[in-house]
Amino acid sequence: MKDALDDLKITLVEESRLPQVDLLHLTFGTVFSDHMFIADYIDGRWQTPEIRPYGPIELYPGAKVFHYGQAVFEGMKAFKDEEGRVFLFRPDKNFERINRSAWRLAMPPIPEEFFMGGIKKLIELDKDWIPDGEGASLYIRPVYIAIDNQIAANASRNYRFMIMTSPAQKYFSGEVKVKIEQHYSRACAGGVGFAKAAGNYAAQFMPTMEAAKEGYTQLIWTDSKTHQLVEESGAMNVFFRIGDEICTPELTDSILPGVTRDSLLTLGRDQGLNMVERKITVDELVDAAESGELKEIFGAGTAVTVLPIKGFGYKDKYYPMPELDNPIAGILKQMLLDIQYNRAPDPYGWRVRVL
Amino acid sequence: MKDALDDLKITLVEESRLPQVDLLHLTFGTVFSDHMFIADYIDGRWQTPEIRPYGPIELYPGAKVFHYGQAVFEGMKAFKDEEGRVFLFRPDKNFERINRSAWRLAMPPIPEEFFMGGIKKLIELDKDWIPDGEGASLYIRPVYIAIDNQIAANASRNYRFMIMTSPAQKYFSGEVKVKIEQHYSRACAGGVGFAKAAGNYAAQFMPTMEAAKEGYTQLIWTDSKTHQLVEESGAMNVFFRIGDEICTPELTDSILPGVTRDSLLTLGRDQGLNMVERKITVDELVDAAESGELKEIFGAGTAVTVLPIKGFGYKDKYYPMPELDNPIAGILKQMLLDIQYNRAPDPYGWRVRVL
Repeated sequence: MKDALDDLKITLVEESRLPQVDLLHLTFGTVFSDHMFIADYIDGRWQTPEIRPYGPIELYPGAKVFHYGQAVFEGMKAFKDEEGRVFLFRPDKNFERINRSAWRLAMPPIPEEFFMGGIKKLIELDKDWIPDGEGASLYIRPVYIAIDNQIAANASRNYRFMIMTSPAQKYFSGEVKVKIEQHYSRACAGGVGFAKAAGNYAAQFMPTMEAAKEGYTQLIWTDSKTHQLVEESGAMNVFFRIGDEICTPELTDSILPGVTRDSLLTLGRDQGLNMVERKITVDELVDAAESGELKEIFGAGTAVTVLPIKGFGYKDKYYPMPELDNPIAGILKQMLLDIQYNRAPDPYGWRVRVL
Repeated sequence: MKDALDDLKITLVEESRLPQVDLLHLTFGTVFSDHMFIADYIDGRWQTPEIRPYGPIELYPGAKVFHYGQAVFEGMKAFKDEEGRVFLFRPDKNFERINRSAWRLAMPPIPEEFFMGGIKKLIELDKDWIPDGEGASLYIRPVYIAIDNQIAANASRNYRFMIMTSPAQKYFSGEVKVKIEQHYSRACAGGVGFAKAAGNYAAQFMPTMEAAKEGYTQLIWTDSKTHQLVEESGAMNVFFRIGDEICTPELTDSILPGVTRDSLLTLGRDQGLNMVERKITVDELVDAAESGELKEIFGAGTAVTVLPIKGFGYKDKYYPMPELDNPIAGILKQMLLDIQYNRAPDPYGWRVRVL
């Protein structure tokens, strides 16, 4: 892994904001650690990267990111073990994905040493911002935006890559119910759904808010052609336990290839579980819910880790999941957390120690 | 039309940048007039709007627009007639559309007086920036972005509405060839294609650049389900002259409802032309091109006005359009420009005088 930054300008905060922060009570994504990483791509060349105090950046109102949504991002976490050692989880996957996202949005690739080196240096500087305890982490947000001051609908020449970090507790709390969306679409074949492209997210807000009025926390998106094939849930991939199968939709260009999704497939298979990637239809889920074969639904994503779902809504009917003594979601979640928090061996080489 | 701004803070430039600008030689969207309009929506209330010198704004790196593409915009033009009077063209349509776009992206509506009043005041202050002559205009770009400093994928509470203006000559020059896209998609049913949402544009850059390598200026997007139904061209709607019909795809939620498109339909109908909105298939276009029935293709949009297209590519074959003595595109364009530049009566009430 290339993470050596030959040249990096560092400006430290004069005084840390940490004493004013209550790391036990955090609203997700609202508190930022002291420092951020910034690197600009100007006229075909990456400029000297910089770490400086987290604070406002200046952009012209004509900057392309505002008008054309040329922006991609990633979501990752740093975990602290009981001895205070700090680990990343499969950061190579996020690095690969941000550059696949960038490719789809016509943006130049980000150098590996900026991505990995920037994250590592930030964690080193802001290690005291990592909260303790299970479920707690330092959320890491690389974001990559188009900055040309030109309002013409074509790719920018100049870009800015930034990394910020944010201490985090759990993403959702309380019971999570999902609605299977039948009118709106998140993505389509030939589109940008597989990319972590900024525009994919704003498009989901209004439909999700509509579903929230009916008591649903999230939507499960279906394919835009037929609304019969289950895709993903916007902030997470989804898994279903149907009979003896733990299945999740097979990847297409309208589904984000989640790192947690991939990890759960491996963990489950190595436990002898029947983990299957395949097409999953809404009719099948309804039938399985009615027959009692559908025993669990859970989400998988960096922000949510593994999130049990209490039931789903479809066409004005609600299908609750049974209460289980020992759900698979809980087993997989525990295995994942044990690796992430360095409480179990890591035969896969997923953990990357930073400090 | 509500355009009275009861309260507006104005800060003028100390010295205009206009003397450094060559209004005859402009790259589209690169030169901005002296002033811009800014209004913030904070904690559920619009704040006092402001006009100030065009220049950088400050945003936190966590601003939602960078991560989630919650941003919409408009494109309009101000035209100067031979006596120096200045007109907008159907600004009510753009105002309606930006709020429809905003609704889809879960953003609060923009007050009419901010939109109309902001534009009018900017034009008044920067009237000397409007270039003279046919094809020249002051391009007006309202843009509306999410500014919450929070990296959680849900709608922002706070927003910024800005208007900037840019003196413009023609958008495209030279011959325009289009390729009918068969793999990538711009939008889908249930998505945000009908909205002028930022994310719709970045998604088109890479496929358009790929087509450019084959010599095409723009793509013609097709429906994401079958790639058989013609939709639009990203920066413009498209019209086809097939036999005695001038047809354009009927509006769906994956097609931007263009103001120029709507205006050409009206102008053509009042000339007795057979203007038709309907489903148009790619197979039909290929057949009509081969039989000689397809006589013209042209784009229609605010930036391009009416743009004749020389031919289209489909599955590695190129279908050139015939050279016509008196193309319909030229007739419609002239009628439109005559109204826009106040050289002809305006029975529709489309012109709105500003100065």
